[in-house]
Amino acid sequence: METLSQNQAHNGVQGVYRHASLATGTDMTFSVYVPEHVRGTRLPVLWYLSGLTCTHANVTDKGEYRRACAEHGVILVAPDTSPRGEGVPDDEAYDFGQGAGFYVDATQAPWASHFHMRAYVEDELPALIAAEFPADMARQGITGHSMGGHGALTVALRNPTRFRSVSAFAPIVAPSVVPWGEKALGGYLGEDRDGWRPYDACALILDGARVPELLVDVGDADQFLHEQLRPELLRAACDAAGIDLTLRIQPGYDHSYYFISTFLAEHVAWHAQRLEA
Amino acid sequence: METLSQNQAHNGVQGVYRHASLATGTDMTFSVYVPEHVRGTRLPVLWYLSGLTCTHANVTDKGEYRRACAEHGVILVAPDTSPRGEGVPDDEAYDFGQGAGFYVDATQAPWASHFHMRAYVEDELPALIAAEFPADMARQGITGHSMGGHGALTVALRNPTRFRSVSAFAPIVAPSVVPWGEKALGGYLGEDRDGWRPYDACALILDGARVPELLVDVGDADQFLHEQLRPELLRAACDAAGIDLTLRIQPGYDHSYYFISTFLAEHVAWHAQRLEA
Repeated sequence: METLSQNQAHNGVQGVYRHASLATGTDMTFSVYVPEHVRGTRLPVLWYLSGLTCTHANVTDKGEYRRACAEHGVILVAPDTSPRGEGVPDDEAYDFGQGAGFYVDATQAPWASHFHMRAYVEDELPALIAAEFPADMARQGITGHSMGGHGALTVALRNPTRFRSVSAFAPIVAPSVVPWGEKALGGYLGEDRDGWRPYDACALILDGARVPELLVDVGDADQFLHEQLRPELLRAACDAAGIDLTLRIQPGYDHSYYFISTFLAEHVAWHAQRLEA
Repeated sequence: METLSQNQAHNGVQGVYRHASLATGTDMTFSVYVPEHVRGTRLPVLWYLSGLTCTHANVTDKGEYRRACAEHGVILVAPDTSPRGEGVPDDEAYDFGQGAGFYVDATQAPWASHFHMRAYVEDELPALIAAEFPADMARQGITGHSMGGHGALTVALRNPTRFRSVSAFAPIVAPSVVPWGEKALGGYLGEDRDGWRPYDACALILDGARVPELLVDVGDADQFLHEQLRPELLRAACDAAGIDLTLRIQPGYDHSYYFISTFLAEHVAWHAQRLEA
């Protein structure tokens, strides 16, 4: 693991790191904020999965999470959204290919060669975080935005004992039935829709996956609310499954980092409460 | 004035605007954050002047000021650092020309044609802010970073009755005697160093300019501390003049927005206290 930058912020260290990923067969860059802490102690970890077009840098620059992480003693990890670089397949569209990995392990050519973001965020990067940072992997939470909200929900639903807390900002809750998701899941996984179900939060819940509770914020001025996000489908799935979903429709907020940065500190505090030792 | 974007953030509105500037003879872009407020009321204004290479966007994206501005009911205005565009002179160096206006009214060719950033931030933009936003211009404070800290200090020292509060992050306090300043002031104003004095905070204080108090934060890991910033010169000037300078050398912090975003909320609160009705 190579350190690309480290800067003191809110008394902790905001770092950006790169490593050669076996999962994707590429170098991968990610950011980690580690609050000031007593040497030798280990801190809970909050994963933040980013949305379409983003790298680790968007939330690192614009997320306004460090003050809250410092206050609550929570590490925040922000992975990239796909493999990148020469030799990695890409697509001209913003919602497919590089920057749009959808947190799946692709099975279709040409994507299957590198697009293994499920293995990367579920297995490889957690092992690296556990080894290289003062992280207590028994206390993990996960959140994310849009495509990354989809990532957070599906990773947590597939690994219910790993995460004590799960939240999301404007998540894609049912990719199998919305344009972004149909395009991505069809492209990466092929046309057999049964293979999409492990990557669809509502389908996972319908198929029996459970987490005890969810916190989801969505802005009512979000341009993608009705076509791509459809939080009412998550509401229905959680109600049917008995999952305690707190779904907050935030008046006036859009899909941007202005929305995320308004509420991310609150999410950090919410996770921190559930990640206490 | 044209609205380029408006996004709700922390219950207020973060806007980015463009207008045709008479001072610079170019279009100028700036950002304004207006907290939620009772219709018809006017809010105090905090000016934030940015550093070398920056536009309005750096602090708007990375400054982490909106929560504090919302809490204290303070408008934050972030101008650009120079005129820009085709037909505007430029220089290949990062510290001269576009992105490096140094908040002076240039007198030397070719800069005198457009580089009137003093007139822009002192006169033209304040008039626009007063006309277009719910700003109480009787309650103004000013701050800035690096070159913009120089701007904040010198604008305030030249206009002591206009600003109730002045602070700075890692300011260039004596441009006449440091490399960045000698290059810029010589280039924009010519070799007669007497003409530089209105643009040098320490020289202004030596020449009799006064503000009641100053708050200055500088990181002790700032790579520019000893060669370009030299806060000890401001300490000496303020001590000699009886100006109440709070100079905080912040251990571990560098020159980046990670430093600014750590302390900007505290500066907003400090200004807000002095800007109360």
